[in-house]
Amino acid sequence: MLLPNPERPLLLLDSNVCKDNIKRMVEKCRENSCLLRPHFKTHQSQQIGRWFREYGVKGITVSTPAMALYFAEDGWNDITIAFPFYRAQINLIKKLQKTASVRLFINNEDDLLYINNELNKPIRFYIEIDNGYKRSGISPSYRSTFETMIDTAKNLRNIHFHGFYMHDGRTYQCRSPEGILDSIKPSAKAMKELKEFYPEANITMGDTPSASVLPSFEYLDECTAGNFVFYDWMQYKIGSCSLDDIALFHMLPVAQAFPDEGRAICHGGAVHCSKDYILDDDGSKNYGQLISLNIENTFNIMDGKLQSLSQEHGMLTVGEKSKNLILNDYVFTIPIHSCLTANLYDHYRALNGEIIKKRILS
Amino acid sequence: MLLPNPERPLLLLDSNVCKDNIKRMVEKCRENSCLLRPHFKTHQSQQIGRWFREYGVKGITVSTPAMALYFAEDGWNDITIAFPFYRAQINLIKKLQKTASVRLFINNEDDLLYINNELNKPIRFYIEIDNGYKRSGISPSYRSTFETMIDTAKNLRNIHFHGFYMHDGRTYQCRSPEGILDSIKPSAKAMKELKEFYPEANITMGDTPSASVLPSFEYLDECTAGNFVFYDWMQYKIGSCSLDDIALFHMLPVAQAFPDEGRAICHGGAVHCSKDYILDDDGSKNYGQLISLNIENTFNIMDGKLQSLSQEHGMLTVGEKSKNLILNDYVFTIPIHSCLTANLYDHYRALNGEIIKKRILS
Repeated sequence: MLLPNPERPLLLLDSNVCKDNIKRMVEKCRENSCLLRPHFKTHQSQQIGRWFREYGVKGITVSTPAMALYFAEDGWNDITIAFPFYRAQINLIKKLQKTASVRLFINNEDDLLYINNELNKPIRFYIEIDNGYKRSGISPSYRSTFETMIDTAKNLRNIHFHGFYMHDGRTYQCRSPEGILDSIKPSAKAMKELKEFYPEANITMGDTPSASVLPSFEYLDECTAGNFVFYDWMQYKIGSCSLDDIALFHMLPVAQAFPDEGRAICHGGAVHCSKDYILDDDGSKNYGQLISLNIENTFNIMDGKLQSLSQEHGMLTVGEKSKNLILNDYVFTIPIHSCLTANLYDHYRALNGEIIKKRILS
Repeated sequence: MLLPNPERPLLLLDSNVCKDNIKRMVEKCRENSCLLRPHFKTHQSQQIGRWFREYGVKGITVSTPAMALYFAEDGWNDITIAFPFYRAQINLIKKLQKTASVRLFINNEDDLLYINNELNKPIRFYIEIDNGYKRSGISPSYRSTFETMIDTAKNLRNIHFHGFYMHDGRTYQCRSPEGILDSIKPSAKAMKELKEFYPEANITMGDTPSASVLPSFEYLDECTAGNFVFYDWMQYKIGSCSLDDIALFHMLPVAQAFPDEGRAICHGGAVHCSKDYILDDDGSKNYGQLISLNIENTFNIMDGKLQSLSQEHGMLTVGEKSKNLILNDYVFTIPIHSCLTANLYDHYRALNGEIIKKRILS
């Protein structure tokens, strides 16, 4: 790797690892007769989206109508907006329907009627299931709500029931593949039961930890994981991936080094890393894991981390063996949560020097 | 206030309160014969910058050369980059010098020589003082380093010593005006001593908490506070401002309400709020304080807050008295840290409907 000294923090992408991650998930889904509709909120890049297309992916998942429009501009015409619909979005949905088939999350009957009246083209909807994660969605025990919604939709021209969707983010609290498998079991069971009760429903799940470690997707019709495209330090600690699967790195200028104190100030603060952190075993926060990046694009985990951030400053602490690194012009770190870090950049810098553009506003 | 239902989260600005905040700090500095060089990293908006200019402000402070160039485009020609200089920035500095007089933070002699050789126009520098905050800067006890740097600069054509700069962020840990005054005392003392020893040096400080509550700025030549332009929930809890001084609000669509459970899912996640939080008295996290905004643009603090965030979802919990609010199409919150929240938007929506543009990339 030969990179010029950056004028500002840089987000580096190992495109080979990224493409391998895409290929692996595509093949896993294909072997399981499960449709991969990857969540594009992680990379937010038309160019990276095309890599998925090259592997045969046809439908995608996004967070917002605006993000959907960005990808629709690049030819994606089958898009799920994986966030509970609210009525102020209706004009953006209409705009999106001009070129794409759209799926929404609808969690109440009133919105079905509202949408049916507003739209001129049919749309599909998921009912979002919350099995205890306590974010959006409906408990799988609310069968009467499902009955009502599904029955109501049968008589509507412009909105059709597609299936049940669940994102059980509790897998993010795990710290081993076995832990992830245990954590996802009750939600998998709930979805299987829904499938038995509503055989016409498509069953969709999407968290990267379980999508990465489940040996099979027997009960899943669709998988909407997204983070696996890059992975990150949190996913590694969760047990979702190996170090070799991590595709995103931060290149941070060293602004001031204090080798005697085992610390340095990097240009790499909250506006570059985001303030997401992971707690290390000793209870201290880690906002970015120090690595050494080798010329052949492999890396070694080093004894150092961003231990706190202010708006522009990253406070890096290093152990004895890593002190030499802070004497360089820049250091490399693995982002804690690649989705939030990537959201703060308008491009990735591939290790071969290529600039890969992305959208910046969510 | 009459606002249309937003298609996405919206950052609202009360421009009257904002202008009052600017006016108050300008007048306080003027009364103290202290030059206000406000930090523009908080608002990052040329238009808001002009409000400062109308009150007579001539010099400003920013975080990066890129941010400096953005403001230089709007006619600012006296700009401090308040982050330790690193050499990869040199070409941006040269570009900036075409229209603006620039001040840098230089913390070692080598960089003085490097800059003197590289530049064709003179530049001024601060030595950054760290009195124990442990971010960037040099301990005030390092007199020999100061001597060497100041002496060296005397013989250089293109770089001249301007003064000492300190940002003591420990005031952000305070919870009362008295606490802030106590917290800043040792750093104020250190700066006073430097002034006695180096009478030609300009003494500059910049944290919003102490700038807001110090009754006088006797020992300060320059003040570079920035957050006061908006304030936020953290500044209110620190004791820097009153509720009436808060100028920035979040308008977040309610995506799903669970009134029986006293909670709602808002469209307002980490990509809108940032993941900065404040710990409430009970030890729980607060990512955004619920308010009710009245038609005459006053507001009431309500019993509710964003208790956790994922990328797009804000998990709002409310007490009994605020349950009616989550039945509306949207809720209003006060951002925890306005600098980081504003950094995630490309515009503010003034309460009179006006769109106030800003830059988005840091």
